[in-house]
Amino acid sequence: MESYASESEYLNALAARAVLPMGFQCAVRELAFHPRERVGAQPMRMNLSLLLLDRETRDFGGVFTRNLFPGAPVIIGRARLERPTIRGVLANNRISNVCTSRGVDDALGLLERLGGLTGARGDDFFCASTGIIGWELPAREMREALPSLVGGLSVSSILPMARAIMTTDAFPKVRAAAAGKGRIVGVAKGAGMIEPNMATLLCFLCTDVAVPRERLREDLAWCVERTLNRLSIDGDQSTSDTAILLSSGLKGPADPEEFRAALLEVLAGLAFDIVRNAEGIGHAIRVRVERALDEATALGVARAVVNSPLVKTAVFGNDPNVGRIVSAIGDYMGNAGGMLATGRTIVRMGGEEIFSEGCFRLDADKELRLCEYLRGRAMDTKRVPWPQHDRTVDIEITLDGASPGVEILGSDLSYDYVRENADYRS
Amino acid sequence: MESYASESEYLNALAARAVLPMGFQCAVRELAFHPRERVGAQPMRMNLSLLLLDRETRDFGGVFTRNLFPGAPVIIGRARLERPTIRGVLANNRISNVCTSRGVDDALGLLERLGGLTGARGDDFFCASTGIIGWELPAREMREALPSLVGGLSVSSILPMARAIMTTDAFPKVRAAAAGKGRIVGVAKGAGMIEPNMATLLCFLCTDVAVPRERLREDLAWCVERTLNRLSIDGDQSTSDTAILLSSGLKGPADPEEFRAALLEVLAGLAFDIVRNAEGIGHAIRVRVERALDEATALGVARAVVNSPLVKTAVFGNDPNVGRIVSAIGDYMGNAGGMLATGRTIVRMGGEEIFSEGCFRLDADKELRLCEYLRGRAMDTKRVPWPQHDRTVDIEITLDGASPGVEILGSDLSYDYVRENADYRS
Repeated sequence: MESYASESEYLNALAARAVLPMGFQCAVRELAFHPRERVGAQPMRMNLSLLLLDRETRDFGGVFTRNLFPGAPVIIGRARLERPTIRGVLANNRISNVCTSRGVDDALGLLERLGGLTGARGDDFFCASTGIIGWELPAREMREALPSLVGGLSVSSILPMARAIMTTDAFPKVRAAAAGKGRIVGVAKGAGMIEPNMATLLCFLCTDVAVPRERLREDLAWCVERTLNRLSIDGDQSTSDTAILLSSGLKGPADPEEFRAALLEVLAGLAFDIVRNAEGIGHAIRVRVERALDEATALGVARAVVNSPLVKTAVFGNDPNVGRIVSAIGDYMGNAGGMLATGRTIVRMGGEEIFSEGCFRLDADKELRLCEYLRGRAMDTKRVPWPQHDRTVDIEITLDGASPGVEILGSDLSYDYVRENADYRS
Repeated sequence: MESYASESEYLNALAARAVLPMGFQCAVRELAFHPRERVGAQPMRMNLSLLLLDRETRDFGGVFTRNLFPGAPVIIGRARLERPTIRGVLANNRISNVCTSRGVDDALGLLERLGGLTGARGDDFFCASTGIIGWELPAREMREALPSLVGGLSVSSILPMARAIMTTDAFPKVRAAAAGKGRIVGVAKGAGMIEPNMATLLCFLCTDVAVPRERLREDLAWCVERTLNRLSIDGDQSTSDTAILLSSGLKGPADPEEFRAALLEVLAGLAFDIVRNAEGIGHAIRVRVERALDEATALGVARAVVNSPLVKTAVFGNDPNVGRIVSAIGDYMGNAGGMLATGRTIVRMGGEEIFSEGCFRLDADKELRLCEYLRGRAMDTKRVPWPQHDRTVDIEITLDGASPGVEILGSDLSYDYVRENADYRS
């Protein structure tokens, strides 16, 4: 089991993972600005991050939100997928650059300037923004900060970028895995507003394993579908979700299966880190649905349970109010018009059977055991800025079909979630 | 505008509405019990309520949850719809009698005993239960309480029943309207766990207008669809939703249109009262969607916005973080695979245009006005046990189709919601 007794212990582990693969550099820089949309405000702070390949690569891919109001970086990024080559990614936090009249032009102008500073084409960069939706980028201030951003490039570690892209994240997230003679290293940000399809989630992955573009893209889509798309914090999919994978190819090819497994490991780790760091989280929740009629039903049931505010608040309170789990299943299936052999549905929490043969299986002793179970899985990322442990509250639902099991990761719903989101922009 | 300066002012208004239509009596009684599912607990308290017709009626109807794990009262109630006559309803709070091995038998036994005490057939009663899901009814204690419940029947007011069915409700809910020479009077309970299709919502309606059974059922379904099914507190549809309408017919028929309009008025009022009393509510939110492609899309968009935890927490904080509204629309439409003319989508809050022609329309002055708007619509049902006013936060979304407008009522998401639900069962 993974657990960290202190922040420095966690950061030491991250530092070891965060060594950049061969052929990559990274830099970060902070700037201050006054948002146009708020009168007399204190200046806000923004971090710029740059992930740069030593030379352009043909082997890159990206996956983006399905939200129909995508941010300018998503619009630009989708077009960049058609480009022959890519050189790097420019990212900022604080403002997500969504649906403003100048958003796309501002972003393209910044990339053009970045190209000039790095000896590359502006077209050879992705960009990515996270933060407040609806406000304009401080393009002038960002532009002025670019030379010193480029001047700060270093080949050592991606950890500064993992930090710089954070918004309400309590801790940076880095995962790495080996494949062939090379490595895959990934960073991600995302705390609240996380849903299937990667809401307000930025994820940057780099590798020195050589993987041809088409296979790289297939692997990325396959692994994202099973990791980032299977977590849900609050059911919101943002305007700006982006996952990008770049390969320098400098360590040569690896066995294709080995590469995909390594990428899956990195993305699964990042997905779990994101859930462990959900805004104000008290518990990470893992809902597993076995033997549904089909995969869509399995995922729907799992999401219905993990997104139910009533299930989430009960788990937060260490209250095994398991009736709410069964209600959420029946609610989802009833609204979906689905069939449900209610007499053959089995529900377990922490391995304890709580529902079978159409009836709840509850007694006072089991209630006490479930309370203890929930208490033992509590964490408090508001109190300490690192993930204490990797324990989850496990809910297992077995239905009456033949579809393979699926898992969705989620979080409970706490006071701190409300607090952070009630005035996120202050 | 409706607003009440004190609890007694509100209760005086309710008392006037709550006079029972001719041919009805009502009674309530409290009892104490020790739940089997919790060791050494303090006794819990439960209220029994009885709504009784002086004689059985053919003219009655009911609408029930679509949850696939319905409570015993829902299973029994659906069967009762086929009965030639009905005499009344027995309701309890505290335990919802869902999926226990003895649940249906316990409920039928209670109704049989109630029949004996009232000179009616046990088959001629509906029952309704709300509260904890998964625990067993204290059938013995309830049975022992029935004689004094029946002994307390009174013809004056339904207000005691409006109180007795409350769970986490802060205040009782009664609405009334005249039709022909008679009246319709309704009570409801429901605070959290409220979704389209009437989750954990009990609603009992009685009238002395004569309405033939088939038309009465059509009117009930039509009106519930446009009222109780268009509110959403936390997206959960419970196992126990029930709305029942009984007619004594003693005041003769009314114009059919007039009766339906009166029923709609009563149900719309109750729906709004439920939203105003959502658990820990800070603001009631009304989302109106105009000109969607079809009604299903309109309702889907409206529910996506009103159920978004990010929209809800921002409204709670009086923070006009309107980007989250637009994101919720794009998220829903993107996942639904729907078409959206993003450039022709218009979003308003409190009448202020915040998004049009593909861009946010924000500036510092508008931000201040929207903050003021949200502050002016805040309420605090935790501080005072009555609804302060009937102001709502109005969000209007205009799309590019031709479907008529729809409205969904909802609530914000507050600390108190989390508090009430984190240990609801204590």
